[in-house]
Amino acid sequence: MGGDKGPAAIVAGLASFLAKDPSARAILHGREQDLTPLVNKRRIADRVEIRDCPDVVQMTDKPSQILRQGKKTSMWSAITAVKTGDADVCVSCGNTGALMAMSMLILRKVDGVNRPAIACMWPSMSAGNFNVMLDAGADIRADQDDLLTYALMGTSYARNGMGLARPRVGLLNVGVEEHKGRAELKVAHELIAAAADRGDFEYIGFVEGNDLPSDRVDVIVTDGFTGNVALKTGEGTANLISSALREAFNNSFLSRIAAAIAYTSLQRLKKRIDPRRVNGGVFLGLNGSVIKSHGSADPTGVAAALALASRLGKNGFSQKLAARVATATALAQDAQNDGAETASTSAKSE
Amino acid sequence: MGGDKGPAAIVAGLASFLAKDPSARAILHGREQDLTPLVNKRRIADRVEIRDCPDVVQMTDKPSQILRQGKKTSMWSAITAVKTGDADVCVSCGNTGALMAMSMLILRKVDGVNRPAIACMWPSMSAGNFNVMLDAGADIRADQDDLLTYALMGTSYARNGMGLARPRVGLLNVGVEEHKGRAELKVAHELIAAAADRGDFEYIGFVEGNDLPSDRVDVIVTDGFTGNVALKTGEGTANLISSALREAFNNSFLSRIAAAIAYTSLQRLKKRIDPRRVNGGVFLGLNGSVIKSHGSADPTGVAAALALASRLGKNGFSQKLAARVATATALAQDAQNDGAETASTSAKSE
Repeated sequence: MGGDKGPAAIVAGLASFLAKDPSARAILHGREQDLTPLVNKRRIADRVEIRDCPDVVQMTDKPSQILRQGKKTSMWSAITAVKTGDADVCVSCGNTGALMAMSMLILRKVDGVNRPAIACMWPSMSAGNFNVMLDAGADIRADQDDLLTYALMGTSYARNGMGLARPRVGLLNVGVEEHKGRAELKVAHELIAAAADRGDFEYIGFVEGNDLPSDRVDVIVTDGFTGNVALKTGEGTANLISSALREAFNNSFLSRIAAAIAYTSLQRLKKRIDPRRVNGGVFLGLNGSVIKSHGSADPTGVAAALALASRLGKNGFSQKLAARVATATALAQDAQNDGAETASTSAKSE
Repeated sequence: MGGDKGPAAIVAGLASFLAKDPSARAILHGREQDLTPLVNKRRIADRVEIRDCPDVVQMTDKPSQILRQGKKTSMWSAITAVKTGDADVCVSCGNTGALMAMSMLILRKVDGVNRPAIACMWPSMSAGNFNVMLDAGADIRADQDDLLTYALMGTSYARNGMGLARPRVGLLNVGVEEHKGRAELKVAHELIAAAADRGDFEYIGFVEGNDLPSDRVDVIVTDGFTGNVALKTGEGTANLISSALREAFNNSFLSRIAAAIAYTSLQRLKKRIDPRRVNGGVFLGLNGSVIKSHGSADPTGVAAALALASRLGKNGFSQKLAARVATATALAQDAQNDGAETASTSAKSE
């Protein structure tokens, strides 16, 4: 019920997803009287169960309100279905803050995770066309231990969601030199480097904002404040260029002809950088998978988020991540002790 | 001497700038035996004075090294020329950290400024085609008072560098709601709002990453860590799209024909978002104007940085900014006292 375009767009996206993924089934949470006609119209009633929920979380609701009064909402019902095992993955287009707060309350954090994170896909020049960045905005803070956990969780996501055997991890900073950046970044740098071998990833060190779409890294680790600003800056820049491009092609009779001729190529480009195709921020660090779809997602965007959910569900991602973090907690503890010593030594020599 | 492309690109850019700005003159700092033939070749010797400097700051030098050993460098000589009044503005393509450290040492901070900032131009949908963002990376930290100072300095820059009478100022955050973001941002929000009337700017409140290129704001205020990541993320995104666009147009015979037909429109677009045209990070908060040009600037980029320098020099920008901050310091002090009270009240009610 939570998207800006209402349940019709969500059911349309669901229908398109189900057509491409014949083994998938769905549980829809929301007002039955609204959902039933939409489901019947799309002829997917045999693969969809509807769970009637009287309330809807509003975009303007504060997380604290929601936790007190939200038990009859579609969001609560959807997350609970993951908790009980009725669903493998929850997908929501609703209020991000409320979704994260409710998910933490219902699903609980994985042992060893202090701050869960949101991982997002970033269009890139890498072989798979995408990089992963986390945290995209679950929390506005991350200390050195959180950043190490993000590296481990991001690696697990890249392995299970993107099929990368040995992901390359970078830590976002304002320069690649070791002496740059905030104190917690220098410590995290040591911690992540120390965990790389045992965590089975390659640590490439500090990366900068222009590396987010580059082909030299797969997983970019940062705090949720910086990550959220970077994500929205990338979106804003892409929008500016698209609108300038549209303007350029509408500029004259000749340029309109050119646009018509180049139609196929331009569509290919559009598809490549289309934010709808990479729709879906995955919550990492909870006992169960939750995906936040963009609030303004249209049917194409909703279908992309559902396809991602299906892939993660089939891989048993959430169990694998929990196991990885549990094993890593002990290792990280070691790495941290080693790392902290190295870091304090290097701080002295600075 | 500091650019990646060497002094030839800088002298070429200087020649192109001097051709467009008949009243301007320049002092070139660097190795005389390298510079003299370049200046003669461009036939600008009558408008250029060369100051021979044996040393050059390297990109890999640490600021601390430079401050101890840098007195014979071209960078030191160029900044000193501003200090002595021989030059109105210093432009350098060299090492940013060294340039800022040396500028602070030689020119000193303006009274009332704790952390100087680097302001950069951001291609945008605003009427003037650009927004200003600061700090783009002078410092990795900024507390609430620094953010207020950035708002005042950014306003002064927008007025003198871009001709905006009453700039619209926004504070970068992860959401526009008042309860979002870090503690120092909430306090800065109150401080900047309280200073708006007396500072003669319009405060539009929190903005997000996607507002950086938008037409609803002129000056975006943030700390140098976030600003630097955002700036480089924007550059990286623009590069990704340009290369995808080039690929799309080289894709087939038809698309190459289309590109040829749309050539003028595409050039117009390219010019609009060309980072070389907005080359020049302006150091704000020092007693004298210093502009950091991109290290990889080609002659077009160097000429753009020089044109900006000329505009600021003719406006007496650095004196105006100092006067503005001096007046504002007292006002800010008041605003801060008021603001701090409001902020602590609202923190309680949170």
